[in-house]
Amino acid sequence: MDKIFTISVIVGVPVSLIGAFLEWPSILMFIIYCLSIIALAGLIGRATESLAIVMGPRIGGLLNATFGNAVELIISIFSLKAGLVGIVLASLTGSVIGNLLLVAGLSFFVGGLKYKRQSFSIHEARHNAGLLIFAVIIAFVVPEVFSSAMNEQKTMGLSIGISIILIVLYFAALLFKFVTHRGVYQSNDKREQDAQAEEEPEWGRFKAIIVLAVATIAVAFISEHLVGTFDDIGQAFGWSELFIGIIIVAIVGNAAEHASAIIMAFKNKMDVAIEIAIGSTLQVAMFVLPILVLLSLLFSTTMPLVFTWPELISMVTSVLLIIMLTIDGDTNWFEGLILLAAYTIMGIGFYFI
Amino acid sequence: MDKIFTISVIVGVPVSLIGAFLEWPSILMFIIYCLSIIALAGLIGRATESLAIVMGPRIGGLLNATFGNAVELIISIFSLKAGLVGIVLASLTGSVIGNLLLVAGLSFFVGGLKYKRQSFSIHEARHNAGLLIFAVIIAFVVPEVFSSAMNEQKTMGLSIGISIILIVLYFAALLFKFVTHRGVYQSNDKREQDAQAEEEPEWGRFKAIIVLAVATIAVAFISEHLVGTFDDIGQAFGWSELFIGIIIVAIVGNAAEHASAIIMAFKNKMDVAIEIAIGSTLQVAMFVLPILVLLSLLFSTTMPLVFTWPELISMVTSVLLIIMLTIDGDTNWFEGLILLAAYTIMGIGFYFI
Amino acid sequence: MDKIFTISVIVGVPVSLIGAFLEWPSILMFIIYCLSIIALAGLIGRATESLAIVMGPRIGGLLNATFGNAVELIISIFSLKAGLVGIVLASLTGSVIGNLLLVAGLSFFVGGLKYKRQSFSIHEARHNAGLLIFAVIIAFVVPEVFSSAMNEQKTMGLSIGISIILIVLYFAALLFKFVTHRGVYQSNDKREQDAQAEEEPEWGRFKAIIVLAVATIAVAFISEHLVGTFDDIGQAFGWSELFIGIIIVAIVGNAAEHASAIIMAFKNKMDVAIEIAIGSTLQVAMFVLPILVLLSLLFSTTMPLVFTWPELISMVTSVLLIIMLTIDGDTNWFEGLILLAAYTIMGIGFYFI
Repeated sequence: MDKIFTISVIVGVPVSLIGAFLEWPSILMFIIYCLSIIALAGLIGRATESLAIVMGPRIGGLLNATFGNAVELIISIFSLKAGLVGIVLASLTGSVIGNLLLVAGLSFFVGGLKYKRQSFSIHEARHNAGLLIFAVIIAFVVPEVFSSAMNEQKTMGLSIGISIILIVLYFAALLFKFVTHRGVYQSNDKREQDAQAEEEPEWGRFKAIIVLAVATIAVAFISEHLVGTFDDIGQAFGWSELFIGIIIVAIVGNAAEHASAIIMAFKNKMDVAIEIAIGSTLQVAMFVLPILVLLSLLFSTTMPLVFTWPELISMVTSVLLIIMLTIDGDTNWFEGLILLAAYTIMGIGFYFI
Repeated sequence: MDKIFTISVIVGVPVSLIGAFLEWPSILMFIIYCLSIIALAGLIGRATESLAIVMGPRIGGLLNATFGNAVELIISIFSLKAGLVGIVLASLTGSVIGNLLLVAGLSFFVGGLKYKRQSFSIHEARHNAGLLIFAVIIAFVVPEVFSSAMNEQKTMGLSIGISIILIVLYFAALLFKFVTHRGVYQSNDKREQDAQAEEEPEWGRFKAIIVLAVATIAVAFISEHLVGTFDDIGQAFGWSELFIGIIIVAIVGNAAEHASAIIMAFKNKMDVAIEIAIGSTLQVAMFVLPILVLLSLLFSTTMPLVFTWPELISMVTSVLLIIMLTIDGDTNWFEGLILLAAYTIMGIGFYFI
Repeated sequence: MDKIFTISVIVGVPVSLIGAFLEWPSILMFIIYCLSIIALAGLIGRATESLAIVMGPRIGGLLNATFGNAVELIISIFSLKAGLVGIVLASLTGSVIGNLLLVAGLSFFVGGLKYKRQSFSIHEARHNAGLLIFAVIIAFVVPEVFSSAMNEQKTMGLSIGISIILIVLYFAALLFKFVTHRGVYQSNDKREQDAQAEEEPEWGRFKAIIVLAVATIAVAFISEHLVGTFDDIGQAFGWSELFIGIIIVAIVGNAAEHASAIIMAFKNKMDVAIEIAIGSTLQVAMFVLPILVLLSLLFSTTMPLVFTWPELISMVTSVLLIIMLTIDGDTNWFEGLILLAAYTIMGIGFYFI
């Protein structure tokens, strides 16, 4: 698995450079860019993980929380710079429903084919559920509903306020999880703690930092070119901006997470699989998105925290579904299938819109 | 109880025939049709149950799942043929909120008057809760919200896609319940299993099939005439199409289920009462309704999966309420009363609309 | 604490009278009125509590349930008389989200700074959750959605019907809690029962009734004048009617509850803190508000049960959040912070609107 990623990077990045320079056809380059980014995201994930182990749990948690969605952040910044506010919101929506429905759904389903019942920490599930309701059902719904009675300036003011609150609460959640309440709710499953104790970093500190830096720069470069192909791709396949953002960009940006969550589920490490799926969602909703709202103030087109109604409703209903299915700390193949069915319904919806 | 049904059928069906032939006044015929259908539904229920026992649990579960709402399916097909798409969606909405609020509410309330606390399987409740959120809050909400940005053709395309997914998931749920995870979650309440072991069919296979066939044909005949009286009834009582569909047709179509759920609650068999109320809801939402959407392609007026907002909101909020009240596996009279109060509020709403 | 309240009353009420007579500037009087009402609410609370202990648990519960929000009821009646229907609905919305997010949030946060984990009865939490969904998500949402297809008269008819059902269910809930199921769900925490057994009233019956009567009259008098200052205050600070109602009036009307809930949380009596926060919400939603709808029939401007969308969505999402955070019977500082963050988001929203 890891080797495939490494080879893809070694081949994909130079080909991306050459193709961009020689102006190969958009569809071909779109595919090359996507594959290269998926491979680079895998590298960034491994580097972050190694660094997290070296640095200890607290700074490690912070590193994971900040770099975990680096690829999405970078793609989004270039989209923002190009004024494609709609695509940024769409791809973040896609990231949320992709993680909650597709990543979690595949994990539950594949894991459930091997094991009759799989379990994970109820406390973790409830903690995440509270944050999901806060971020998606309050912080995203309020500006949507309130902004219909506001002018553009007030909407942006509200968006900025909410973004700051989201970021503050995101770091407060890390403080809660890694400092004040570390291990408080874990009494009954020490397995995980033991597992963590054994962990050895794949790479040393120096190598990890170098890989992280180089891969991030490469992603940035390719992302900028990827964004430039959206127009041609949309016309070639008859896909709307919304569909490209929500389904395509989201799958590309999260491919590495998809792979590792499923592998963890197959190893019956459901706590890790859940952490990847839901933790990543919270990262996008409470860190990446608000950072982008604030960054947009530096660009010519500002981005308010206002989704389209289909986007918002997709996220809200996904949150309700995943909460219902995870709140009992128990999964099986059928619960995975429900999530996948929900993802398919939304995919069809965004295709037709 | 059973005798009353049998006598009602023996009297009601011929009177329906004669009345229809002699063109008796609409209001009288409306009442006769309704009573006859209620009685026939009781017969169909008994025949299906006998057949289910004879055929064993797997095919039996399938039979119950398919014929359980045969009456509603038949009435709806005739309404669809008459182009009354609005009434079909209304009566299915009525069936959903009627089962979730009225049937469950009466069961909890009546059972609760006799027993201080009544309990049932938490696992079953959670399984149902996941399906209710999937079917009502995702599969019904998505086309509602997305279709406002779609033309008629795309809306129908989305409706067809969702209908197929609903039906597939419905059968997957049966597979999960009766094959792959049969008994997996039942360790702590073997009572039910024992009770099932004792069950004897009321009728033999042959008699059950005959009754099923004849009663179904009679329901079909009467339903067609019942649909024809809606116009006159609406004018006579000042009832809107919506009110007739949601309250009247739904009560008539589900009367047999109402009766048996309450009897089960009174016998403290809450698992069965819940299964009737919520299982029947899921059947309507995941089987009857999508089948009707697909069947409507054969008629001149197609039926998209798009409810009116009051219908949709009634279903969504009913789902949230029933999940909250059943998720702890414990009921009492007051929880029943909450459900009945919610039903009354919606009834008043649909009356005034 | 109690002494400060008593002194505030002794100083505040005469100053209010003099200021009103001499027509001091609105902003000054607004502040004096608010402080006096907060102090009087404290007195009313203590009188009600003393009386409740003297009269025994059943009538005591009824007294608490009726007089607990007497101040809000009185302010609202004067607003209603002045035709300020919008402010009444806004202040009740503010009371609901203020209790659910600010009072509960501060309690959880402050209590959580002292204790790592605080717990309370799961059964109570679930009972409250069911009522919150019924009152806010069904009884408030249905008229909102249905009324868009109704004329004014039908909307009022629906509002009256729902109000009666809310009041009936409110008293049924008291019957359930204090009569039919008293102690049924409390087997595992007898602490509270013991604590109740020890309780001694602060004042005798006679003194309590006198204080209650005099303080209520004083609140009524001051409230009438307070309502008269809203116009000037709004203009002076650039606050909308909505913001004054939802944030300012709600904080003033509930200040006494805020104080006692936080004190209880600090003493680790989370059951009482929760009862104040959520019980008070239910009182407003199921008793104060429907009473006001019915009373409005006596005034020139009737008040339908129809909120603005931002108000309704704020209440609905607050309910979902508090249910998720309390359903496990366990709180900590971070859950308190989530609630406070949600309140801040809504506060910013109503400020900008």
